[in-house]
Amino acid sequence: MPKPQSPLGAEIYDRELENVFHSWSAQGSLDPLVVTSAEGPYLTDADDNRYIDFSSQLVYTNLGHSHPAIVDAIQRQAAQLCTVAPAHATASRALAAEKILDHLPENLTKVFFTNGGADAVEHSLRLAKLTTGRPKVLAAMRSYHGATQTTLTVSGDNRRWPIDDGRTGVVHFFGPFLHRTVFHAETEEQECARALEHLENVIAIEGPDSFAALIMETVPGTAGIMPPPAGYWAGVREICDRYGILMICDEVMAGFGRTGAWFAIDNYGARPDLVTFAKGVNSGYVPLGGVAMTQEIADTFRDTPYPGGLTYSGHPLATAAAVATITAMEDEDAVGNAARLGTDIIGPALTELREKNPVIGDVRGLGCFWAIEFIDGYGGQKALAAAARAKGLLVFVAGTNRLHIVPPLNIPDDVLREGLSILDAVFSEVTAEQDAAAPVEAVS
Amino acid sequence: MPKPQSPLGAEIYDRELENVFHSWSAQGSLDPLVVTSAEGPYLTDADDNRYIDFSSQLVYTNLGHSHPAIVDAIQRQAAQLCTVAPAHATASRALAAEKILDHLPENLTKVFFTNGGADAVEHSLRLAKLTTGRPKVLAAMRSYHGATQTTLTVSGDNRRWPIDDGRTGVVHFFGPFLHRTVFHAETEEQECARALEHLENVIAIEGPDSFAALIMETVPGTAGIMPPPAGYWAGVREICDRYGILMICDEVMAGFGRTGAWFAIDNYGARPDLVTFAKGVNSGYVPLGGVAMTQEIADTFRDTPYPGGLTYSGHPLATAAAVATITAMEDEDAVGNAARLGTDIIGPALTELREKNPVIGDVRGLGCFWAIEFIDGYGGQKALAAAARAKGLLVFVAGTNRLHIVPPLNIPDDVLREGLSILDAVFSEVTAEQDAAAPVEAVS
Ligand SMILES: Cc1ncc(COP(=O)(O)O)c(C=O)c1O
Ligand SMILES: Cc1ncc(COP(=O)(O)O)c(C=O)c1O
Repeated sequence: MPKPQSPLGAEIYDRELENVFHSWSAQGSLDPLVVTSAEGPYLTDADDNRYIDFSSQLVYTNLGHSHPAIVDAIQRQAAQLCTVAPAHATASRALAAEKILDHLPENLTKVFFTNGGADAVEHSLRLAKLTTGRPKVLAAMRSYHGATQTTLTVSGDNRRWPIDDGRTGVVHFFGPFLHRTVFHAETEEQECARALEHLENVIAIEGPDSFAALIMETVPGTAGIMPPPAGYWAGVREICDRYGILMICDEVMAGFGRTGAWFAIDNYGARPDLVTFAKGVNSGYVPLGGVAMTQEIADTFRDTPYPGGLTYSGHPLATAAAVATITAMEDEDAVGNAARLGTDIIGPALTELREKNPVIGDVRGLGCFWAIEFIDGYGGQKALAAAARAKGLLVFVAGTNRLHIVPPLNIPDDVLREGLSILDAVFSEVTAEQDAAAPVEAVS
Repeated sequence: MPKPQSPLGAEIYDRELENVFHSWSAQGSLDPLVVTSAEGPYLTDADDNRYIDFSSQLVYTNLGHSHPAIVDAIQRQAAQLCTVAPAHATASRALAAEKILDHLPENLTKVFFTNGGADAVEHSLRLAKLTTGRPKVLAAMRSYHGATQTTLTVSGDNRRWPIDDGRTGVVHFFGPFLHRTVFHAETEEQECARALEHLENVIAIEGPDSFAALIMETVPGTAGIMPPPAGYWAGVREICDRYGILMICDEVMAGFGRTGAWFAIDNYGARPDLVTFAKGVNSGYVPLGGVAMTQEIADTFRDTPYPGGLTYSGHPLATAAAVATITAMEDEDAVGNAARLGTDIIGPALTELREKNPVIGDVRGLGCFWAIEFIDGYGGQKALAAAARAKGLLVFVAGTNRLHIVPPLNIPDDVLREGLSILDAVFSEVTAEQDAAAPVEAVS
C-alpha cells in the first residue's frame, strides 16, 4: 500500500505507525491503507481512491458502510443516553435482546451481552462448564474463536501455538471438509459419516462425562469458509444429547445473514444450547457481541449469581445500533438478498472463475460467504489482492492459500458484478504474468 | 427498586427481565432501575425521577453524562466512518493513541487498543510473557482485573472461586493496606516496608526467573479504593528491575483523572512497563480499552507477528470519543478539578461523616475516588444506598462493607455538596433506625 500522497493522509499514516500497535502483525512491516470515509459498499482512502469492499472489513459490515438508519440510531442514542451500568435497565438493551432472540431458534431465551466475539465465547464456555459441572471442552481443528488466552486456546488455528501452554482442558477434533478430507472420503455423505464417527471416537476415548461443551463455528469462517455437509449438525446434536454435552454454535462470523439465513444453523435445522454472536449483530458500527442461551442454562443462575460480567455489558449505544441494524435487515430483506446473491451471482461467477483459472483448486460458500482456494504450491494470492486493490476492489486474503469473497449482504447487484468482473480481469492478468515468470506446478 | 409506574417504563422493565441475562447476578432477583436519559452528573429514570450520580456508573463516566463535546464527536464520526478493520489506518485511532501517550510516562510509546478492561489485561499479560519468555505472573490479593477466564484468575477476588481451576500460573501476594494490615504494621511506613519485604519473599521462594510480570491496580479500586503508601510503587519498580519482571499498572479504573492525576501512577512517580486502561479513556460512551507499552516491548514484535488481535481494535467511533474526551479533559482541567474536589470537598465531608457515625470504620481516597468502610458486623450499606436513592442520590455498594463515592470529575461543586448532604442525612436517619432496631456490636 503506498503511503498517501495527500499531506493530511500522509500525516495520519505516520501517526498511526508511530503510535498504534497493530493486531496479528509484525510491527516493522505495517503498511496500512488510510481510510477517510465509507458509504454503502464503498471505502474511500486519503487520496480519494474509492474501493468496492468485498471484505466487509473483517466480515462484519453486513449492511455496508454508513447505513443511514444505523447512523441515525447511533446519533439519536448518543444525544439521549450513551451509556448506563449493566445493572440498570434501558430500552435499547431490552429491545436488542428481544430482536436477536426473535431470529434465533426458539429454545434460546436469554442474551448475555459482551463487547465482541472473544468475550462472547469466553462466557459461553463458562456458562456451559458451570451448568454441567464438567471440566473439558471439545473444539474443532481449523477454527477461530478469538484471541483471549482461553478463546485462542480453543481455536484450532496455528496462531494458537505461541500462547498454548498445553494445560487447556480443550480436546480438538476434525470437522468435515471434503476438499481436504482427513478421512479419505470421496463423497459429502462419506465425509459427514466419517467426521461424526471420528467425533464419537474422540469422545469415547477422552471420557464422555468429562465434556461440558462442544464449540464449533456453524460454518467455519477464518479457516476457509467450509460449509459442513447437510447431515453434520443433526449428527452432532444427537451425539451431544447422548452424552449430556452442551452444543455451542459460534455464529460470530456466520450469523446475521452472512450465509443467506438469519443464523447459519438455520441451514441445518439443529438446535444449539448456546449461540455466540458479534460482528453482523450491528454491522460492527459499535463494538458488541453476546451469547444466547436456553432457559435451562439461564436457570442455573436463578438463585446463584453468575460469576462473570463486564463494564459495558448491554451498552446502550451498541445495542441501539443492533436494534437499527436488525430492523433494517428485516425491512430490506437483507437475508433473502444475501441468499439470492450467493445463488444467482457470486456462486456462478466464482464457478466460472475456477473453470478459467487452473490455479484455483476450489470455490465454495453460500450467501455472501465465499472462499476461493488455490491449488497447492500457488502463492500468488497477495499479488492478486494487490492488483485488485489497484483496480478499486478490496478482497480479503485468508491463510496462505485463499481469497475470501464476503461483500455486504445489501451490495447492489451492479456493484457486485463490477467487483466480480474486476476479479476476473485481475486473475487473467496476474496469473498470465505469473505463468510467464514461473510456471506453477500442476498439483490439483 | 420499584418497577416503574409509567407504562413505557414498566414495559422496558419487563422486557429487560425477560430477555437479558445480567452480569454478576442471580437472575431470579434482578430489580433494575430503568434509565431513560442522563445529563452531566444526573441520571433520569422512567418515572422522571432524577438522581445525582455518585457512582459514575461502574466508575467510568469521568466526564458525566451527555457531555456535548463527546456526543458531538460521536455523531460526526458516525456520519463519516463508524468502523474500519484494524489493519487499516484512520485519523481518530492515530490521534487517540497519540493523546493517550501524551499523558502517560514518556517511556511508554505504543498503544494496542481493545474493547474494554479485561481484554486490555489479557494482552498486557501476553505481551509480557512473550517479551520475557517467562511463564508466571504475580498479582495482588484484593484486586480485580476483569472476567475472562485469565483475567478473573489473575484477580484477587472471591468472584474467582467458581472458575479457578488452580492451574493458573498466577502467584498472589498481599499489597499494602494499613486499615486491614496483614503485616501487623502500625504506620504507613511499616506497612510499606513489610509489604515490599513480603513481595520479595514470595518472589524468592517462587523463583525470580519464573515471572514475566507483576500486575497490580495502581490504586486498587473494586476491592476497596486502597491508595498504597508513598514509597510502595518505587519499591515495586526496584524489585521488578532487579529480577527482570515487567511491571504492569492496571489503570482501568484509576486512570484518566480519577485520582486527581492523569494516571494514578503519577501520584507515585514510578515508570510502568505496561499500562492497561479503559473506562475513563472515553468516559465509557463507546466501549474502548487498551494497553500502552514501552518501545522495547513493541520491538519484540517488530519482525515476529504479535499473536493476538480483535475485530474492533482501534474502532473509529470509540477512538473518536476518546479524542473528544481527552481534549475536553485538557480544556476543562478535569484532572485538576478532581484533585481539588477530593482535597477541598469530598475528603473533609467524609471525615466529618466518619466522626459523626461510629459505624464507619474508615474513609479514604483521593481525587474523585473514595471509600466509606464500615466497622465489622455492620450490614446496613444496602439500606443506606436504598435510602439515598429514594432521596435522589446513586451511590455504589461495594463488597460487603463499603460504599464508594466516585462522582464524575466535573461534577459542579454545588451538586457535589448537595449529594454529600443527602448522604449525611441518610446516615443520620438509617443508622438511628438501625440503632433502635438492633444495636450494632461495638467492634471498631
Ligand atoms: C467465529 C469467530 N468467533 C470469534 C471471533 C472473535 O471475535 P472478536 O475479534 O470480536 O473478539 C471471530 C473473529 O473473527 C470469529 O470469526
Ligand atoms: C482495575 C480494573 N481492571 C480491569 C477491569 C475490567 O474491565 P472490563 O469490565 O471493561 O472488562 C476493571 C473493571 O472494573 C477494573 O476495575
